[in-house]
Amino acid sequence: MTIFCSLYIALTHCPVTNKNGEIIASAVTNLDLHDIARTGKTYGVAAFYVITPLTDQKDLAEKIVLHWTQGAGGVYNPARRDALELVKISDSIESAMSDIEKREGKRPCLVATTAEKGRSTLGFEGLREKLADGAPCLLLFGTAWGMANEVFEKADHVLPPIDGAGDYNHLSVRCASAIILDRLAGPNHTG
Amino acid sequence: MTIFCSLYIALTHCPVTNKNGEIIASAVTNLDLHDIARTGKTYGVAAFYVITPLTDQKDLAEKIVLHWTQGAGGVYNPARRDALELVKISDSIESAMSDIEKREGKRPCLVATTAEKGRSTLGFEGLREKLADGAPCLLLFGTAWGMANEVFEKADHVLPPIDGAGDYNHLSVRCASAIILDRLAGPNHTG
Repeated sequence: MTIFCSLYIALTHCPVTNKNGEIIASAVTNLDLHDIARTGKTYGVAAFYVITPLTDQKDLAEKIVLHWTQGAGGVYNPARRDALELVKISDSIESAMSDIEKREGKRPCLVATTAEKGRSTLGFEGLREKLADGAPCLLLFGTAWGMANEVFEKADHVLPPIDGAGDYNHLSVRCASAIILDRLAGPNHTG
Repeated sequence: MTIFCSLYIALTHCPVTNKNGEIIASAVTNLDLHDIARTGKTYGVAAFYVITPLTDQKDLAEKIVLHWTQGAGGVYNPARRDALELVKISDSIESAMSDIEKREGKRPCLVATTAEKGRSTLGFEGLREKLADGAPCLLLFGTAWGMANEVFEKADHVLPPIDGAGDYNHLSVRCASAIILDRLAGPNHTG
């Protein structure tokens, strides 16, 4: 059993790109919050940041989280409550970084994920070793057509895309984040 | 790169249990079809069976699949078409087994998955070895509160639940199936 107490994750809705490569803020998806919170809880992440600067999207995310943590949802399904209690809503990657810095007493390592080849600067095993050493890390997942270039420029490290059985690289962010957390914090690896 | 040509997956909507342990047929969820098809395509599965005996649910699944394989969806997003082309809609686990038997010329090994401890009869590594030997296998994922006991009694093998960082065992089926396929058919394992 592995618990990395200083592993934080974030789902980035801005800045991301659309199909035409333009920088946008994407919409919050209810099931992303549920699925990624449940995966985060499974692998012991310290917090799950939902990042959007849009007021209506922050309100929507807040409403979903409150239903399951303090409303009828949490009574109906306490396991879902335990997961959604990990969620923190943040205006930006930078504000999530500041929040973690306050908790940890030092600035976390910022690690981006991507479905694209050629961006990677650190393998899964390398990040696993950093986490085992106790380094606080914020692991970023993108939405829409992926995070904007500026995020990769700002990141301390970029993980490789998930290599399956061929060249198909169109996993959902829900599934990609689950596989990545299993590779980083699951029990079948040494690091 | 690993391709197991004889790995089949199925999402079981019947027989499954509800919160009270009663046997039911659950509703088809649009996003399950998309996410699991995309994961299946990533790991090179031969087909993805969506199992339900309910006519309206079969019609719904068919409509979703046709939109993305032959309708406007496939033009808009060809990567989604490639994934959803894996989907086959089946009345029952038995009819999926028969379909695979016709394709493979022999009956596949039936392997169930579960979030519950104490049912497992084969580890991930063991199944990986069977797949590497070319044995056709149908890997079953459950919906609602998990597959009915009769499925586990019928299965040739049961995989262990996913072990994360603690006792929390409430992954979504979308995420659980992604992690399991990565453990069985991903590149970071030997088998």
